[in-house]
Amino acid sequence: MTVATIAQNKPLSEEQLEKMHAYWRATNYLSVGQIYLYDNPLLKEPLKQEHIKPRLLGHWGTTPGLNFIYVHLNRVIKQQDLNVIYLAGPGHGGPGLVANTYLEGTYTEYYPDISQDERGMKKLFTQFSFPGGVPSHVAPETPGSIHEGGELGYALAHAYGAVFDNPDLIAACVVGDGEAETGPLATSWHSNKFLNPVRDGAVLPILHLNGYKIANPTVLARLGDKELENLFIGYGYKPYFVDGSDPEAMHQLMAGTLDTILGEIKSIQSEARTNGFTKRPQWPMIILRTPKGWTGPKEVDGKKTEDYWRSHQVPFSDTQTNPEHIALLEEWMKSYKPQELFDENGTFRQDLAELAPKGERRMGANPHANGGILLKALKMPDFQDYAVEVSKPATTYAQATRISGEFLRDVMKMNPQTFRVMGPDETASNRLSALFEVTDRAWMAERLPEDENLSPDGRVMEVLSEHLCQGWLEGYLLTGRHGFFSCYEAFIHIIDSMFNQHAKWLKTTRDEIPWRQPIASLNYLLTSHVWRQDHNGFSHQDPGFIDHVVNKKADVVRIYLPPDANTLLSVTDHCLRSRNYVNVIVAGKQPELQYLDMDAAIKHCTAGIGIWEWASNDKGGEPDVVMACAGDTPTLETLAAVDILRQKFPDLKVRVVNVVDLMTLQPETEHPHGLSDREFNTIFTTDKPVVFAYHGYPWLIHRLTYRRTNHQNLHVRGYKEEGTTTTPFDMVVRNDLDRFHLVQDVIDRVPKLGYAAAYAKQELRDQLIEHHQYVTKYGIDLPEIRNWKWPY
Amino acid sequence: MTVATIAQNKPLSEEQLEKMHAYWRATNYLSVGQIYLYDNPLLKEPLKQEHIKPRLLGHWGTTPGLNFIYVHLNRVIKQQDLNVIYLAGPGHGGPGLVANTYLEGTYTEYYPDISQDERGMKKLFTQFSFPGGVPSHVAPETPGSIHEGGELGYALAHAYGAVFDNPDLIAACVVGDGEAETGPLATSWHSNKFLNPVRDGAVLPILHLNGYKIANPTVLARLGDKELENLFIGYGYKPYFVDGSDPEAMHQLMAGTLDTILGEIKSIQSEARTNGFTKRPQWPMIILRTPKGWTGPKEVDGKKTEDYWRSHQVPFSDTQTNPEHIALLEEWMKSYKPQELFDENGTFRQDLAELAPKGERRMGANPHANGGILLKALKMPDFQDYAVEVSKPATTYAQATRISGEFLRDVMKMNPQTFRVMGPDETASNRLSALFEVTDRAWMAERLPEDENLSPDGRVMEVLSEHLCQGWLEGYLLTGRHGFFSCYEAFIHIIDSMFNQHAKWLKTTRDEIPWRQPIASLNYLLTSHVWRQDHNGFSHQDPGFIDHVVNKKADVVRIYLPPDANTLLSVTDHCLRSRNYVNVIVAGKQPELQYLDMDAAIKHCTAGIGIWEWASNDKGGEPDVVMACAGDTPTLETLAAVDILRQKFPDLKVRVVNVVDLMTLQPETEHPHGLSDREFNTIFTTDKPVVFAYHGYPWLIHRLTYRRTNHQNLHVRGYKEEGTTTTPFDMVVRNDLDRFHLVQDVIDRVPKLGYAAAYAKQELRDQLIEHHQYVTKYGIDLPEIRNWKWPY
Repeated sequence: MTVATIAQNKPLSEEQLEKMHAYWRATNYLSVGQIYLYDNPLLKEPLKQEHIKPRLLGHWGTTPGLNFIYVHLNRVIKQQDLNVIYLAGPGHGGPGLVANTYLEGTYTEYYPDISQDERGMKKLFTQFSFPGGVPSHVAPETPGSIHEGGELGYALAHAYGAVFDNPDLIAACVVGDGEAETGPLATSWHSNKFLNPVRDGAVLPILHLNGYKIANPTVLARLGDKELENLFIGYGYKPYFVDGSDPEAMHQLMAGTLDTILGEIKSIQSEARTNGFTKRPQWPMIILRTPKGWTGPKEVDGKKTEDYWRSHQVPFSDTQTNPEHIALLEEWMKSYKPQELFDENGTFRQDLAELAPKGERRMGANPHANGGILLKALKMPDFQDYAVEVSKPATTYAQATRISGEFLRDVMKMNPQTFRVMGPDETASNRLSALFEVTDRAWMAERLPEDENLSPDGRVMEVLSEHLCQGWLEGYLLTGRHGFFSCYEAFIHIIDSMFNQHAKWLKTTRDEIPWRQPIASLNYLLTSHVWRQDHNGFSHQDPGFIDHVVNKKADVVRIYLPPDANTLLSVTDHCLRSRNYVNVIVAGKQPELQYLDMDAAIKHCTAGIGIWEWASNDKGGEPDVVMACAGDTPTLETLAAVDILRQKFPDLKVRVVNVVDLMTLQPETEHPHGLSDREFNTIFTTDKPVVFAYHGYPWLIHRLTYRRTNHQNLHVRGYKEEGTTTTPFDMVVRNDLDRFHLVQDVIDRVPKLGYAAAYAKQELRDQLIEHHQYVTKYGIDLPEIRNWKWPY
Repeated sequence: MTVATIAQNKPLSEEQLEKMHAYWRATNYLSVGQIYLYDNPLLKEPLKQEHIKPRLLGHWGTTPGLNFIYVHLNRVIKQQDLNVIYLAGPGHGGPGLVANTYLEGTYTEYYPDISQDERGMKKLFTQFSFPGGVPSHVAPETPGSIHEGGELGYALAHAYGAVFDNPDLIAACVVGDGEAETGPLATSWHSNKFLNPVRDGAVLPILHLNGYKIANPTVLARLGDKELENLFIGYGYKPYFVDGSDPEAMHQLMAGTLDTILGEIKSIQSEARTNGFTKRPQWPMIILRTPKGWTGPKEVDGKKTEDYWRSHQVPFSDTQTNPEHIALLEEWMKSYKPQELFDENGTFRQDLAELAPKGERRMGANPHANGGILLKALKMPDFQDYAVEVSKPATTYAQATRISGEFLRDVMKMNPQTFRVMGPDETASNRLSALFEVTDRAWMAERLPEDENLSPDGRVMEVLSEHLCQGWLEGYLLTGRHGFFSCYEAFIHIIDSMFNQHAKWLKTTRDEIPWRQPIASLNYLLTSHVWRQDHNGFSHQDPGFIDHVVNKKADVVRIYLPPDANTLLSVTDHCLRSRNYVNVIVAGKQPELQYLDMDAAIKHCTAGIGIWEWASNDKGGEPDVVMACAGDTPTLETLAAVDILRQKFPDLKVRVVNVVDLMTLQPETEHPHGLSDREFNTIFTTDKPVVFAYHGYPWLIHRLTYRRTNHQNLHVRGYKEEGTTTTPFDMVVRNDLDRFHLVQDVIDRVPKLGYAAAYAKQELRDQLIEHHQYVTKYGIDLPEIRNWKWPY
């Protein structure tokens, strides 16, 4: 039995053991202090109510385990000069990580006001979970973290993302047993099938069986060791149990286990790096079972507390009404013997401080956890070299994503270690297959002779889990690299909540944490969009991710709807160069009409919005109507509608406006890309009807423009949840976004069209009926609709 | 070896084998026909291009495996008179399930036009993946399905939800190996820790290792049997492999395995039902490994197709340009020997048809898969019995969710077999603990003596996976029962995409499928909301689920923001009685001021919106300003602002409007709850300033009201993504939603206040500074703010 052997070894000397235990006591002391104390940080005076925070908010339960792991990682980092970052999955381990980075000195380097003395310690305690202070979980504010502990489920995916293309890095990832119940975490274990020991670093997962969630036991803690072992062997790991509560035995066991495991990691890596990748190794992992609230009060008011859910948050909090609890707190804190750990001034004992690694080896100071420091700009080919020739607008076809796939291919080629493309099994389906000319899909599971574009060296990451794609990419970006995520539009909602957390991380780091350097933007290409679910139908139709994204801070979100290939190229280039944003690009993958040559595309994308003179006939004067559009399908229908309008009403002055950058519609006070009112009025007029064909839910356009002068004349068409398995044109008809409805919308809003309008309306209705009959019979759109081109 | 033993047994007689194989050929024939044929369904004529659909859309790859399973389930259902429903996880197995329900007769019963003859078969073929027809995946239209195959990840959670409290039901759940990579599915395997063999039915998971996704192998198909076996033993199952491609051997193996497994299920159940629950059984499951596109063309144009990703969709589609492909299709379809299966009229051979079960035992006709048929109204206590006494508005405190917990407790008590409450470990945290007076948390994993409210008979379902909570609840509702899901507001975004699918299911069944009976609504209680994340901070703040929900069809979504305990009671009662909706209730769990006694609450909730006369001083006349509010925190701040306004400007006429039912704000043309313009104008005036304090992102109120006459005077405050770990009042201050900002908003909009306004503004600023200093020092809000009550 591995476990027994290690325990007998006693790898730590008496002195080492004593010191590491003292260091651990110090981290626990500082953690309890953060949760409880407002003053008297060294307990020099007898503890009184006035030393305790008026409101006790924090989480003790997971903290001593996190501290235990940190102290042990420090030992091996120092001994073997390892490059390690620490990901604390358990939600509210904030006090532990803050305590550790404080003791190793990084906290004070980032926040000089939190000095390593009594005054600093008081501030350290006060600021925790306090207005204007720091959150109770590991957060962007925490040095050494790339992982926000607020929402659970993503620690392991972040850890894998961090070590991809970082061969020397080890990501020690603590997975809480609460978090382990989430879906994203449950599938994250399979990330080992995507990690190549030759070029990637190692993840050291530590499943922390703390036993309880908020008020419940956890599933994994109640399986029994045999099932647990099976489960993790099944996930492809070699699990080592570190199980117990006696500190001395646990220190020896943990130290021995870490020595063994790091040896295994090293030998896996050196074998692979010497002989090349042959087969997926069985990576080691730790299953650490310790009592919840370990070393905390065993009982409070006669009720079991240590090793129970009552330790989850603050084990007791009514110190104001219950003086016994003040005594209990003092006794608890003094059980760590602070006077043996800190001197009179609050300085940590020198021989203990020596246990921490130095400089950038300290986990709080590891540059990989502040990826912006390491970030290098992508080498970029000139996107104009991939231009589609457009000699006359709206007369030739191309597949926008296929073209941008060629651009991405060369970005991949020029950045063979710092760029990855993620997607849930859709890279080819989304027409980005040019990438496979220069790389493969990453794959460390079994391969068969007939497999194509599948190799251990692949740089396209495909797994049928949007959660994993997103989590890996976040980890990759946060450690200073670049990436691109292509996804079916409807199913990007699967990661709505992960997007939230990443956007919040970016907002906090931009606004409040100057030491965090900007990272590469998170770029989404949403394709296979709502209008082209010809065989997938209703379940695959949802353009609402844009709505979700615009709720986040304007400083961090950007939304682009390039109508064709050249505009998509320009937008993609822009997004890949940007920093600290979430960029959402929506573009179709089907053969579509092309509108702008490269010069026009660059000009259009730079402005973000513009009048298409070639499609307008208002000749620089005031139009009778503005036909606005955003998105490839709405652009097509708008132009076809304009064609009908010109035929039927040659005197009608029509202005065509196309929007690439959706945020231009918002007031400039709301979003940095917003047009000024003057610019907006120049484009949309102040009093003419505007018929706006929009890619997504129509209400969003109203939300963005309700403060604009001409808002009352704005009429928006978009997706209104009408869809099924049908043809492209039938889809727009079902949502009143088709050319015939758009023309009708114009007729209804321009009174001067007079009696000709009534006749035209009848014709439009007839055409819709003809379309309906044809589609229902043949299953395809009428040829004159399928083959429509701009005739002028 | 179990597998070997079964194989040698040859449980099927020669005749049985021959017939079952013929039945399977018929299902495969009909599946290929659906994908390809427009006419000539029995291939009576030589196949020509005109018989083939102009556009080929569908998925063959998974279908033969699904058909194989269906045919084998038919045998055991019939033999043992079992009650089985079939969940087809693999996305696009539509043709298979349609084929099977057609052969067993249910399809024609639901859709008489699709008759069981040549004419009906032609229609069956034509309608598939065709405009106006049926989707290519299993959908609400498919008889016998409770599971939309469009978005992947939820099949197993649905299956478990279906069998909870259905002791006689077996949910045969096919999990695709693509789907198995998703997070939600990966954690769904652990559902067996929540299933009690005494009172619940059984899930029979069939992991279908089809080998490939769209363009990639699947992870689970490339693990090797040993790891796979470990994985599923670790998940708590007893896996049986059914692996092969030779039909004859596979039929025997599958039949034998099913016999064994059903025997095990029966003995697990009878043991538990005789002796009571003692320990969690190791439930059997099947790992079925068959070639993708089994029985399809082995090669197309010299490229491997069967057992490869090229079979995923349509194996070849260019019949128009490639006549050889027409021949290939004819050869393929004829390989199933249709003339042996159907007579001249297209009638299925009688002796084969006999293989299907009869009546409601047919999986397509099982009433559990059309749960509305079985639905019985909840027995409900009178919610008024739980009323909080409110003798004077806004002067006494209560915890709204705690009160509604008492109501839910008695609903639970009165409906001991048809009501469950779900939550990710938050039932107690969300103050619904009264439930534990009558039930426990369901738990079939290990239990310890100190465990509380944890038992095999528990009816509260807690697991730290919002996906599982949602999936179980959907399965439970779709099979005709009732439920309630309480969740932290921010993290309900985790199931955004699942909500989408359920809302789409409801929309489709309401509008287009008359035979689907209405089911109970899906009720969310979102609590621990954005304004009260005192110690969780920024990562736990997101009120945007409402925005997400309103994008779905007005017919199926309802949103309620009850401001206090009595209104929450009234709303909860209403939601539990409703059908076919998704109801979102947002309400706080903290002690809050109470505004309405029960009579007033009922009146207010019935209207959905109303003027609070007791808080207004416009005495039925025209006000100078309307102070509107929606949500508990905004209501408190609005009333406190009105208090300040009255003190500072006694002559100002203020009208207070509270909104419970958010959809009242929309025009009546957009939502059935929408106010008419006349009603809206009566409440909000047509020209007076409206200061609207809203619970969520402020833009939503603009989106809902932009068509209203007085929209231009509407000024909305809400959450604008400013937050951290701080006090309740500091949170509203950071978002300009506090009483002082609201008063300032009024001052800025009511010119007649004159010079007193300037003085008042200075006072407001001073008060904000005083608050800031106090909070930063003491970590709690100023007593006069914490203790504010309505003084009039």
